[in-house]
Amino acid sequence: MAITFARRMESLKISEIREILKITQRPEVISFAGGLPAPELFPVEALKNVAIKVLEDSGSKALQYSTTEGFAPLRKQIATRMNRKFNTAVNLDNILITSGSQQALDFSGKLFIDKGDVVLCESPTYLAAISAFRAYEPRLVGVPTDDNGMIMDELEKILQISENVKFIYVIPDFQNPTGRTWSVERRQHLVDLANKYEIPIIEDNPYGELRFEGDILPSVKSFDTKGLVIFVSTFSKTFCPGMRIGWLAADPQFFNGYVLIKQGADLHTSIISQMEISKYMELYDFEAHIKIITNLYKERRNVMMATMLEYFPSNVKFNYPQGGLFTWVELPQHMNATDLLKRCLGNNVAFVPGASFYPDKQVDNTLRLCYSNMPEERIHEGIKRLALTLTV
Amino acid sequence: MAITFARRMESLKISEIREILKITQRPEVISFAGGLPAPELFPVEALKNVAIKVLEDSGSKALQYSTTEGFAPLRKQIATRMNRKFNTAVNLDNILITSGSQQALDFSGKLFIDKGDVVLCESPTYLAAISAFRAYEPRLVGVPTDDNGMIMDELEKILQISENVKFIYVIPDFQNPTGRTWSVERRQHLVDLANKYEIPIIEDNPYGELRFEGDILPSVKSFDTKGLVIFVSTFSKTFCPGMRIGWLAADPQFFNGYVLIKQGADLHTSIISQMEISKYMELYDFEAHIKIITNLYKERRNVMMATMLEYFPSNVKFNYPQGGLFTWVELPQHMNATDLLKRCLGNNVAFVPGASFYPDKQVDNTLRLCYSNMPEERIHEGIKRLALTLTV
Repeated sequence: MAITFARRMESLKISEIREILKITQRPEVISFAGGLPAPELFPVEALKNVAIKVLEDSGSKALQYSTTEGFAPLRKQIATRMNRKFNTAVNLDNILITSGSQQALDFSGKLFIDKGDVVLCESPTYLAAISAFRAYEPRLVGVPTDDNGMIMDELEKILQISENVKFIYVIPDFQNPTGRTWSVERRQHLVDLANKYEIPIIEDNPYGELRFEGDILPSVKSFDTKGLVIFVSTFSKTFCPGMRIGWLAADPQFFNGYVLIKQGADLHTSIISQMEISKYMELYDFEAHIKIITNLYKERRNVMMATMLEYFPSNVKFNYPQGGLFTWVELPQHMNATDLLKRCLGNNVAFVPGASFYPDKQVDNTLRLCYSNMPEERIHEGIKRLALTLTV
Repeated sequence: MAITFARRMESLKISEIREILKITQRPEVISFAGGLPAPELFPVEALKNVAIKVLEDSGSKALQYSTTEGFAPLRKQIATRMNRKFNTAVNLDNILITSGSQQALDFSGKLFIDKGDVVLCESPTYLAAISAFRAYEPRLVGVPTDDNGMIMDELEKILQISENVKFIYVIPDFQNPTGRTWSVERRQHLVDLANKYEIPIIEDNPYGELRFEGDILPSVKSFDTKGLVIFVSTFSKTFCPGMRIGWLAADPQFFNGYVLIKQGADLHTSIISQMEISKYMELYDFEAHIKIITNLYKERRNVMMATMLEYFPSNVKFNYPQGGLFTWVELPQHMNATDLLKRCLGNNVAFVPGASFYPDKQVDNTLRLCYSNMPEERIHEGIKRLALTLTV
């Protein structure tokens, strides 16, 4: 015999972002590449207190095996916050704690997808979601989008002619990579179509709480009447990513399958980290902390927008995000963002070319910029250098 | 349309152990069921110091996104310990940090198994490995075992007639569920056969360091000449399971595939937990800690063995483990361990019936007992009650 891998391995490749990140760890690089939170805002002091408290009060529980579903008080806190913030009606029995929201995406692929099944998503969409789903060998179909989100007529056209559509994957708030937000009408319309065709929706919402202006919009899940919407989120952007604590909220028809998958995948998520986040929310003002994050990111967005307006040539378009971490740049058709990146790296500026965010087509003239991780003066300088590279 | 799940979901079912564990959380139950470490030995004070130190010295790194492979100093510490303890020759580039060893098993299924492929394992074997692999729809084939491990003639017979064997999964040290340990000859023989047929081996070794008498045996990986052995282990039994830190050690031909899978599955394992364990090993005497664990478990094993010898009827056989957490009981053919469990639960004693540990046959007269999690007097009392239930 000879060693052979599973067929799925043919469709997996090294994440372009993570490879770029390796290069951009040099301190001289101004990086708009990774979607990294601002580390200076991590609640380090609070976490020290919380870590001590959890170990002193319940060390043996915090370090022992625990239940697959997650730490019940944290699941209740999450459900309560979701209902308040996103207008949902979930309770702790709907919440499964996962290793970041990435794991909830992987599990969604595992729960639904057989080889050849169809998964619909925005085009462009989050590239690590594409990787997660690809491991289960679906046919990924990108649905065209505009400034208000997925275009519903296009979605319905695809639904009418497609068989074996397993779910629709969407990021309605401050989307990764575009930074765009869906209108309320589109959210309602999406649920109407999902109901009509009986298709689950995966609503990925890691950024929704990081809104700079206006009110948080009701989640897609808030319009859910048939329990078809699976809501996915994480503490990575509002608290810290290093602990890898995310969750999904799903109705029982899906929840039990996710729990089975979680059991086989890693038994449960770190119970000590779950207890620490729960204790943090009990003892500290989490909303005030999120306010500090949004204020800083808003300043950074402002600087990035102002600098792009001032220095970018007029044939380069970009999005004005109302929250989150990202903006999206469209270069003139003839330009290639990967070539541009190579030249920019020579000037110590990094970003992610847009090509890997398209599930099923080749688009070379877009790129994603992240403003959350660089101080204002470096954003200003980096965008100037990018503009200069664009125009030579 | 109607909602349909992936075909793999048909083969997954709720872990019998985890369901029993829910019942056995009542304090009056003497539980030999779950493979739980003794929580009174968790290094709570040390972890408090370590948590503070990691957050003070490198809080922003500990809470940020990190590399998929894991925290380099921890990977190096693991490689060094493996080489010293298990006679291997690995380095940090071979080590991938996972969310417990369970995740390494899940990833092994994902890396190798297409529907219908063959996976060979001991019969009986670890039931959560069976669950992890089943999600990828293999044909699991159990190879007969005796007190010295897997029977090599039986293995070769199966290899001669089987196509698409993707890997051989083994637990050579203090096996879960039997507590048995493979002889050195069998380990060498296994590698010879793997070399001859070019088949990867997954060597699962969570208990090997917990040896009560005699020397640690060289790992299967230590006989590896063609890089075919993938070694899997965890800090769950030597440190604590609540943090979910495990690892695998693999040669480059496999390592890169595992990294791709890890990226899609959850990006990386909690970096703060990795840094804490690394700092613990730097500041504290980990070997002394393991010695304390083995001393306690040895006492508990002694009490369990002595009580079984005294009270069990002579037609009930059991294994004398030289380390680890488990022993294995064979009842007379006509007895059914699940029926016995129901009667035992009435007397507030719990264990795991053996049936779920068999990959491909129905065996009803075996059961697994865990001695690590109960104090000596409760082990004594619990075994007496079990013996009484056995004889009425």
